[in-house]
Amino acid sequence: MTMKSISLLFLLLNISLGWAEPDIQKANLRFPFDLPKGNGAWIRPTVGQIWPKPQLEQPTDNFMVLRPNDFHFQITGHTCDILEEAIHRYYNLIFFPPRGSGTSKRFQKLSNKYSMTWEKNENFRGYLDTVILNVMQPCEKLPSLNMDEHYEIKIDTTDRPREGIILGQSVWGILRGLESFSQLVYSSQNGIAFQINSTMIMDFPRFPHRGLLLDSSRHFLPLPVIKDNLDLMAQNKLNVFHWHITDDPAFPYESRKFPSLSQLGSFNPYSHVYSPSDVEDVIQYARMRGIRVIPEFDTPGHTQSWGPGSPGLLTPCYKKDGTKDNFFGPINPVPAKNYKFLREFFAEIFQVFPDAYVHLGGDEVDFSCWASNPEIKSFMKQQGWEQDFARLEQFYMQRLINVTQDVTKGEMRYLVWQEVIDNNVVLPTNTVIHVWKDGNNFHDELARVTKFGYRTVLSSPWYLNYINYGVDWDRYYLAEPLSFNGTESQKRLVIGGEACMWGEFIDAVSVTSITWPRASAVAERLWSSASTNDPRLAAPRLEEHRCRLLRRGFNVNPINGVSYCDIEW
Amino acid sequence: MTMKSISLLFLLLNISLGWAEPDIQKANLRFPFDLPKGNGAWIRPTVGQIWPKPQLEQPTDNFMVLRPNDFHFQITGHTCDILEEAIHRYYNLIFFPPRGSGTSKRFQKLSNKYSMTWEKNENFRGYLDTVILNVMQPCEKLPSLNMDEHYEIKIDTTDRPREGIILGQSVWGILRGLESFSQLVYSSQNGIAFQINSTMIMDFPRFPHRGLLLDSSRHFLPLPVIKDNLDLMAQNKLNVFHWHITDDPAFPYESRKFPSLSQLGSFNPYSHVYSPSDVEDVIQYARMRGIRVIPEFDTPGHTQSWGPGSPGLLTPCYKKDGTKDNFFGPINPVPAKNYKFLREFFAEIFQVFPDAYVHLGGDEVDFSCWASNPEIKSFMKQQGWEQDFARLEQFYMQRLINVTQDVTKGEMRYLVWQEVIDNNVVLPTNTVIHVWKDGNNFHDELARVTKFGYRTVLSSPWYLNYINYGVDWDRYYLAEPLSFNGTESQKRLVIGGEACMWGEFIDAVSVTSITWPRASAVAERLWSSASTNDPRLAAPRLEEHRCRLLRRGFNVNPINGVSYCDIEW
Repeated sequence: MTMKSISLLFLLLNISLGWAEPDIQKANLRFPFDLPKGNGAWIRPTVGQIWPKPQLEQPTDNFMVLRPNDFHFQITGHTCDILEEAIHRYYNLIFFPPRGSGTSKRFQKLSNKYSMTWEKNENFRGYLDTVILNVMQPCEKLPSLNMDEHYEIKIDTTDRPREGIILGQSVWGILRGLESFSQLVYSSQNGIAFQINSTMIMDFPRFPHRGLLLDSSRHFLPLPVIKDNLDLMAQNKLNVFHWHITDDPAFPYESRKFPSLSQLGSFNPYSHVYSPSDVEDVIQYARMRGIRVIPEFDTPGHTQSWGPGSPGLLTPCYKKDGTKDNFFGPINPVPAKNYKFLREFFAEIFQVFPDAYVHLGGDEVDFSCWASNPEIKSFMKQQGWEQDFARLEQFYMQRLINVTQDVTKGEMRYLVWQEVIDNNVVLPTNTVIHVWKDGNNFHDELARVTKFGYRTVLSSPWYLNYINYGVDWDRYYLAEPLSFNGTESQKRLVIGGEACMWGEFIDAVSVTSITWPRASAVAERLWSSASTNDPRLAAPRLEEHRCRLLRRGFNVNPINGVSYCDIEW
Repeated sequence: MTMKSISLLFLLLNISLGWAEPDIQKANLRFPFDLPKGNGAWIRPTVGQIWPKPQLEQPTDNFMVLRPNDFHFQITGHTCDILEEAIHRYYNLIFFPPRGSGTSKRFQKLSNKYSMTWEKNENFRGYLDTVILNVMQPCEKLPSLNMDEHYEIKIDTTDRPREGIILGQSVWGILRGLESFSQLVYSSQNGIAFQINSTMIMDFPRFPHRGLLLDSSRHFLPLPVIKDNLDLMAQNKLNVFHWHITDDPAFPYESRKFPSLSQLGSFNPYSHVYSPSDVEDVIQYARMRGIRVIPEFDTPGHTQSWGPGSPGLLTPCYKKDGTKDNFFGPINPVPAKNYKFLREFFAEIFQVFPDAYVHLGGDEVDFSCWASNPEIKSFMKQQGWEQDFARLEQFYMQRLINVTQDVTKGEMRYLVWQEVIDNNVVLPTNTVIHVWKDGNNFHDELARVTKFGYRTVLSSPWYLNYINYGVDWDRYYLAEPLSFNGTESQKRLVIGGEACMWGEFIDAVSVTSITWPRASAVAERLWSSASTNDPRLAAPRLEEHRCRLLRRGFNVNPINGVSYCDIEW
């Protein structure tokens, strides 16, 4: 699932052109905004703007002032652990973020001088000491594809002058509203006051599935790094953590039923594994933030690391002279015992991960090893399939779905990579097809998949692991999922997308800084309206958002070139 | 000085080719090594190997064991603050690096089981409790271009069985030797023992000038980040910190004589500046590690940030209709008072920075603003230079050199970017020309510059700010500075090179992780012999080195794709 790009071609060009002539320098780096003349940063950040942009905002120039010692959230509707934890989290994010409150502390000694100056400002409307949180329906325990994320914020509106309220049907909506509220607050008056402008916001996501894929197989990602990314997802209103937990290089998932998988297939069975309590920790941390955890156990390819702990599972490859080679291919789709293993394994997965959906992978199956293996050859012959190994893959996926449906009493739902449908596997109609190929030319595949009637999630234009020199977020921002030729009902089948951060060349050191805030561009595409698509308008908001995430303690990269934040990393 | 590459071309290709077809994936990413089949990391690290590779090593399979509580360095020759501080630093780096001693702590509870097993090993030669440090000449106070970095290490050699000694003429050599010694020690016996193999090393650098350029103008780099990079430089035997301290966006250098430069030209005059004590701190920190600090105050271009704090210094630009525009160009080379300012300013610089060399910049001067300005037009006319603005640049640089020579009594030495010589400025013969253009096609320029008889420093192939997807260190590694057509005496004029990390798209968050260990490839090219140039042989050593730097507490990126270190970030 990790397209390795055409870097060689680029490299050759790079060498033959000698990097670049100095006289065609800046001209050849493309920017989504005009570079300023003179000194200073390239982009001037907004103040108190929300990322991703809400569906509807009615901003004003009036403002209220928040006082940390007097401020509190007041729960008036339903409540639950998710809400209780969230109000503490957001109180701290607003007033005491880990890296300063938005301006340097040095100004605080000037507070006597500046104190209360806002009271003389004609736009000052008073102190906002209470914000009401009104969850109208009882909390759901778990986030799901169908969760309701609508919310409304009113700060000093005509129907509620000098008051603040966040309301929503569900606790998930309130979580999104709290995030927006925390972003509306900005520090002002040289850093001694927290202000919020009077405003009314009605907001909801454009797509229900808004994800980030992290790959913990190619490099191990320690728990704190995963949690940082869950926080950042919540702060960008993403709601699906696609955990690509195993792949060829390593099997870090510690299975209760099959502990030898990680004992023999991880980089290190003590330090480079996710124990059952680690996994539970991730799921709970995500749940508290309204984020679903969808694990991917990619088969039948991308399974080299399953081999050591599961003898007989992988296909032994054979040399041209008919002797056994000393390496293995994809899962061997012939032996019945392999399906018995898969049945038990996925039963555990379905029990451990509470979400209805599991990602079965199914991408990039290498047929050459299958084709070399006598057992498989004879099976193919017996079936009369000739050399049609796509049939064999189809056979495998079909049986995998059968055994997992059987063991979960038909409750398990699936995501699969697009090859599974490209190879004509018949899937349950509620399966979600994950489109990942062809970069920005994903349109034909989306049209095809939705014509079959399957729902789909898009990742093709959002492979963030491909790094670029210069400003690149605008290309992610401008990828429009619904820009394919299809009927309205086809387009309704596009339920969202995922930014992907494959792990070949990143690990704990830089996964966060390379992912963010580039993934924020994807987050706005998936949350905000289709017409919120002008990078020039987005850039100053994104600039503010980057400094906000930095202030909140996350090592996120600069995003618009030359810049600074009040407090640097 | 920051070539912005031909990214647009790449971008267009990228889009038109749709990233890549999945079937040409890995095949199209080029690796300097073979990818393994099966699971696990792509490269198996070496154990106890030195980076950069010493000129001469005689390794053996015999080993000694170091015991933290019994081990000490014994100074037998000259000593000084540099040496005293170094032995504490290296004791800690060997036994108590910030992120573990090289294997996970969980093994330590097993120590009874494994204890002393090495005593039964036939290669065990005993305990190394003392390492003698013998500095043969009195310490120099300051590192310089001429410092002696030769050293020798003997561990259990035939002339000194079971003993350890590091010797060198100068304290600088001992610093390099201590670094090598610290890298020779590795943890073994499941993490409970520190071992070192019996060996003899004679080592010295191929080039005397081995630098790293950091740019603190386009993004501000806080002091701890600069210090981290000084540590990493020392741990890669680089010896020149080229501090590109000012440029168009910001002027963070707090001048004693001209405080308004940073007050009005920095991103923030309190938090985003280097105070005199900060600068002194950097110089001392570098000195303790045998690193020279060469500041660059780039003029007459790249000076937008000088403008606000120095009225009249920059050239006012004019519109086509002859009216004044509201922006400025390079330093105005006409008014005599500007040279008076430069004379005083650089007198301060020469006093603050102890190195004999100052980098004067001189690159990428934009002539269009000069050409629009009536004062300059009339001056050009008066001189009879027509439209030859290279003459004007020449005039400026010449006068800058004159006033700085005058005010430093002829003691200031210069580095300048290659344009200065390309534009035929006559320079003191001891000036060093910094070649930066044309990427890997730097050969003609090196031939040209050395033919003029100037010494030169190379950076063209080492613009590390240009990031690439995939493994890219080998291209830096394979750039050979002496591969141009020239006589032996021309080649002797190449005194080294510098890796450059320009700051447009990086800041404190990732400057370290993007620079390292890619800069290590440059470090080995500049230190080790020309024949140490096989990336296949280097890759396993570099893999070990990366985990070593991580263990020592630095956020350095993975370098060879799929991998792991005992303790992750």
